[in-house]
Amino acid sequence: MRDLHSEEAALAALAAEVFDGIRALSPDARGVSRPAFSAVETATLHWLAEFARRNGLHVSQDAGRNLVFCLPQDADAERWVLIGSHVDSVPMGGNYDGLAGVVAGLIVLIRAARTGARFCRPVKCLAMRGEESAWFGACYLGSKMLTGLLPPAELAATHKGDARPLSAHLGDLGIDTAPLSEGRPITDLSRIEAYLELHIEQGPLLVERGLPAAVVSGIRGNFRHREVRCIGQAGHSGAVPRAYRHDPVLAFAELMHRLDDTWDHLLRTGRDLVLTSGIVGTDPAGHAISRIPDSLGFSLDIRSQEVEVLDRMRAYLRAQMDDIARSRGVRFETGPEVAVAPALMDPAITRGLEAAMRARFGDAFTMASGGGHDAAIFAQAGIPSGMVFVRNRNGSHNPDEAMELEDFMVGTAVLSAYLEGNS
Amino acid sequence: MRDLHSEEAALAALAAEVFDGIRALSPDARGVSRPAFSAVETATLHWLAEFARRNGLHVSQDAGRNLVFCLPQDADAERWVLIGSHVDSVPMGGNYDGLAGVVAGLIVLIRAARTGARFCRPVKCLAMRGEESAWFGACYLGSKMLTGLLPPAELAATHKGDARPLSAHLGDLGIDTAPLSEGRPITDLSRIEAYLELHIEQGPLLVERGLPAAVVSGIRGNFRHREVRCIGQAGHSGAVPRAYRHDPVLAFAELMHRLDDTWDHLLRTGRDLVLTSGIVGTDPAGHAISRIPDSLGFSLDIRSQEVEVLDRMRAYLRAQMDDIARSRGVRFETGPEVAVAPALMDPAITRGLEAAMRARFGDAFTMASGGGHDAAIFAQAGIPSGMVFVRNRNGSHNPDEAMELEDFMVGTAVLSAYLEGNS
Repeated sequence: MRDLHSEEAALAALAAEVFDGIRALSPDARGVSRPAFSAVETATLHWLAEFARRNGLHVSQDAGRNLVFCLPQDADAERWVLIGSHVDSVPMGGNYDGLAGVVAGLIVLIRAARTGARFCRPVKCLAMRGEESAWFGACYLGSKMLTGLLPPAELAATHKGDARPLSAHLGDLGIDTAPLSEGRPITDLSRIEAYLELHIEQGPLLVERGLPAAVVSGIRGNFRHREVRCIGQAGHSGAVPRAYRHDPVLAFAELMHRLDDTWDHLLRTGRDLVLTSGIVGTDPAGHAISRIPDSLGFSLDIRSQEVEVLDRMRAYLRAQMDDIARSRGVRFETGPEVAVAPALMDPAITRGLEAAMRARFGDAFTMASGGGHDAAIFAQAGIPSGMVFVRNRNGSHNPDEAMELEDFMVGTAVLSAYLEGNS
Repeated sequence: MRDLHSEEAALAALAAEVFDGIRALSPDARGVSRPAFSAVETATLHWLAEFARRNGLHVSQDAGRNLVFCLPQDADAERWVLIGSHVDSVPMGGNYDGLAGVVAGLIVLIRAARTGARFCRPVKCLAMRGEESAWFGACYLGSKMLTGLLPPAELAATHKGDARPLSAHLGDLGIDTAPLSEGRPITDLSRIEAYLELHIEQGPLLVERGLPAAVVSGIRGNFRHREVRCIGQAGHSGAVPRAYRHDPVLAFAELMHRLDDTWDHLLRTGRDLVLTSGIVGTDPAGHAISRIPDSLGFSLDIRSQEVEVLDRMRAYLRAQMDDIARSRGVRFETGPEVAVAPALMDPAITRGLEAAMRARFGDAFTMASGGGHDAAIFAQAGIPSGMVFVRNRNGSHNPDEAMELEDFMVGTAVLSAYLEGNS
């Protein structure tokens, strides 16, 4: 037992070495910045390659200029299980979103090398570029490129900083964009038996429940409206009686109140849903304390793991807007809807991860992921996928991400137990 | 009957002459601008003095450099009934807010002069300066100066354009500010038996009801919060389950929904109330579609003719905020409250105006005023006051104010009938 303990402590120290080393590579005014397909991202991969070689792993590069790590004996495997994640970050982000998943893969490999444990199937760790949408406006670029799911239009998406298209940035890295523009995968998907990903939780559930890690059942899909406008009629706040008002603020309040009620009801009947209006505002050019505003703009972001729930909410939203528009004499202009389908994790892998967690820690907890991840892309490409969440305070995409190394090691132990026992 | 008809048509033509003449004096990019205590305001008063003399009226000036008009035989009256209003306008406002009340007084006097009708008591028309808050941030300056109700601090209020204090602008006009800084009236209030004011309606009620004019029962008081902040906790829109959210937008929606319900209930029980949240917004520096906002700011403007209703709403608002704060884990910071007491019109004058309206047009309609008026200041100074509203489309304080001359003449006829028969 003491040996296992000290072995795990040594592995935790290695993980800390990676987190610290890469944080030092990518500082910003606050937190870290590792732009997608940038020199900082390349330097991060170089650092990881050095680290992996130093720790006895085999390192190679794929057609997307991502790094692939494995035990030396698995370098020529026919098929393998992938543990993947990304190394880029949002601007002034935290050090763990993305990077933790790569470090987890490395630790799982190094743990196996040191303990002599055998994986049931060969395992490779994939350190990807370009997942965050902050840089080119589109997300999961690295995994979409690998799986042939990159919409050709996204090759032309321009960088928020230098305004050059993604294709130019890929060219700089020596990536052949010809197959990408034809929507062809740039890796042989038939050789990937499964895809696993560890990620920090982006919400407070594990903190609130006092759990170090969880198995992810699926990634919520969503439909969103960037700006709904509720259009009423301006008027003097003191002089227009209630019966003659067309108040877009009260119409919005009624709509959100109804959506909130229905949300509560759906949760009580066991369905999965979150909904948010993150941007709300009257028009600063014309609003005043003593004026009924003529309109109000607001965003809507409605997410569920269940396609049926998303469809029901879409119909409910439309019906309530129509009803409130009639009763209050206002108009809702919703603008275009942007939708992403839910991605269910593979049930067999999920059960396997749960069993590994239960065997190792006595209990297992399973939850939905609210944020999107590369795992959704691999699942969409037909590769059975699974995810593990690690407890994290303060959400992600900010410098205050706070994952404890101890919790991270629990997450990696679940992956190891699964790959050594079940896969 | 034909004579009466043509006499009224001639009076309407005179009214049109004043409205057109003064509109031509005070054009702006849109609508008219007659700044308080400005040269344009002085030119307007000069134009009115010329017009009044041409039509046989006596003209004098008071200590506030306002104009006072009357029939020559009433120039030396001991006491009189005042028909007052203001000649200034908001920037790019309409031509009728304020001016209509002055023209009404002139028409009432000229009508009496031409028909030989006798007022029960002497009548004077008062054309005041400086009612709109747009110029110095404070309102009713002219009537507050006359009645001794100008808070000394308002003498130091600076002009939105030239940043000079009100006292300097008054000095330019030769107004003695010494009594003002001591809060003394600059007119002998004991000589004013009553104060009457005609104003365009600032809401849609008369348009909606198809009525040319109304008697005003009182001026709504209000309490307002310029910015209430609802403070919750930011989070990932997809990753934070409902039970762990502290969403300020949903808290605001619930609050407004409850206020709206209570408003509806109070109206059904015969109480007077209007409520408005005219400014609403999440913080543009940090809000995003996929982020639960950390806070939401909103204004509140709650008005009633009844002190008791304002008190009940104040307590209800506080209780609902407390309740929602508890249930949703948010916090409301209300900032300072600004309150104005309701001003009831004198019941005897109101009954007299109603009787005059009924006698002249077969029916009378009485309503509350949502906007504030100089009549509230005279009422506050202890002078029995009354008001008449004239139908007007598109609200006030904008270039689209649309009062029909025919409706205006109905309003002036009500005043004449009251002063010739009841006062």
